Amino acid sequence: MRNIIQIKSPATIANLVCGFDILGLALEEPYDIMTLEVVEKPGLEIIHTDNYQLPTIPEDNVAGAALLALLDDVKNAPGLKLTVEKRIKPGSGLGSSAASAAGAVMAASKLLDHDFSNEDLVKFAMFGEKVASGVKHADNITPCLLGGVTLIRSIMPLDIVKLDAPDLHITIVHPQIEVKTSDARQILKKEVQLKMAIKQWGNIAGLVAGFMKGDHALIGRSLEDAIIEPVRSILIPGFDEVKFRSKSAGALGGGISGSGPSIFMLNKDIETAKAVEQEMKGVYTKIGIDFKTYVTKLNTEGIKIIE
Amino acid sequence: MRNIIQIKSPATIANLVCGFDILGLALEEPYDIMTLEVVEKPGLEIIHTDNYQLPTIPEDNVAGAALLALLDDVKNAPGLKLTVEKRIKPGSGLGSSAASAAGAVMAASKLLDHDFSNEDLVKFAMFGEKVASGVKHADNITPCLLGGVTLIRSIMPLDIVKLDAPDLHITIVHPQIEVKTSDARQILKKEVQLKMAIKQWGNIAGLVAGFMKGDHALIGRSLEDAIIEPVRSILIPGFDEVKFRSKSAGALGGGISGSGPSIFMLNKDIETAKAVEQEMKGVYTKIGIDFKTYVTKLNTEGIKIIE
Repeated sequence: MRNIIQIKSPATIANLVCGFDILGLALEEPYDIMTLEVVEKPGLEIIHTDNYQLPTIPEDNVAGAALLALLDDVKNAPGLKLTVEKRIKPGSGLGSSAASAAGAVMAASKLLDHDFSNEDLVKFAMFGEKVASGVKHADNITPCLLGGVTLIRSIMPLDIVKLDAPDLHITIVHPQIEVKTSDARQILKKEVQLKMAIKQWGNIAGLVAGFMKGDHALIGRSLEDAIIEPVRSILIPGFDEVKFRSKSAGALGGGISGSGPSIFMLNKDIETAKAVEQEMKGVYTKIGIDFKTYVTKLNTEGIKIIE
Repeated sequence: MRNIIQIKSPATIANLVCGFDILGLALEEPYDIMTLEVVEKPGLEIIHTDNYQLPTIPEDNVAGAALLALLDDVKNAPGLKLTVEKRIKPGSGLGSSAASAAGAVMAASKLLDHDFSNEDLVKFAMFGEKVASGVKHADNITPCLLGGVTLIRSIMPLDIVKLDAPDLHITIVHPQIEVKTSDARQILKKEVQLKMAIKQWGNIAGLVAGFMKGDHALIGRSLEDAIIEPVRSILIPGFDEVKFRSKSAGALGGGISGSGPSIFMLNKDIETAKAVEQEMKGVYTKIGIDFKTYVTKLNTEGIKIIE
């Protein structure tokens, strides 16, 4: 049994356009670096080497709460020290809390050489999400753990499915504004028109088929959300222009990452992804909102062990 | 150029459980037999060799209206005679009108050696559906033409996708009662709860992934419709019992075929399909409603040329 493990836990995109609450994907970048080691002192110590002023009491820390849930299922667990170098900005809509929660439980599962199923790990990590947002959602945890494009068919009982997908180059812009997940959820209407729901499920079916066939054009045609995006995008200044200019530059399509404020675009090749980045930069430079962009790829492995 | 063509045009299942309005599949049996031949007399003559008293004036006949739409796009078309031996009972919910419409246009496309796209053929055949039900729907036409499991991602613009699927053995019971498509549509609520819509799109994504992965268990878990079936199934006496007993006998799942009254069940193997048939027979024998059952398979080719 090893005494120390270091992992990269990736950022993720949840609410994949028409796949609200069910489809997500993992990114190559950004990612958090987490180190978990066995120590003599019993219990769990958490250290953050970043500057986000996150709580370090295990029960109040996203990674800590997830780890404690896992340790409840481990007999005679040793003392543990978790060091987190958070590189995914909290509140970006890129699954920062899920990276902490999923990374911690995956690291512990490997370090303690325990044979937890993916479903178990998702369930443990959901305790971390509850600390972060009050809701035990699995939208970001699942792609973070499994990599690639993932489907949550059902949350109760938990039923997660990894989908095949072709290479995808992904451009992201994070305008430095705050969108509270609770606000983003509150403004949604509780009812939808049946005809809009049918349109949405056509697109979801098309998107799943597009990923599995590796059909970029079908993916592009299916990246359409007639229900959530029209309501939520008003919380993100510049959204419509980013989308219009990105698609004009060749993006397959995209939308709000998680509950925002980050916006992502899927692209077939790196050249398009870079051209899309220029358009995103142009929009927020003009509007005068600080921003950060990423040009990255679909991460097919999920959490990676560094050493 | 040949002067005569004979085809088998298959029955189909539309509204595939959670895939209301978007997913359908083709069956090996039952099927209609259609013969189209070039004749000296200009225009279009239609003959029915069955006993369903269907109209034979081309404009009022489902196959005729579809053929006329196609012939509008053909220069110097010869005189044609269409002979239809209808074996799929009209009003069964098994795509009887679609088999006529799709069969006629496919036969004409081959006979006249004309290179129409699948989208063109679907559009022509939709004129036949309009004669049958007043609505130009493509739910049955698409699987009839393409075979296998098909997705209509969008009807306007038309975007149809054939999905990979594993072998499926299909059991059908047609209780001999009348369910009008217009009634079946009218009782649907125009609004659905967002949380139910999300549950539905999880199942649709799971069903598409299950078909494409050839994962029978995932197909089974995804064959759940929380929106349409609870409302429509009240029009079909015995529905709940058929479903319960079929699943207990090992069926993956199933539901209402089209807008009913036929009920279908998907099964992994022929033995289960036959056991399910026994359960279906038991239910309707007990209730005292006349019925017909079929044990058949997924038809992967669609319309077949006999000679």
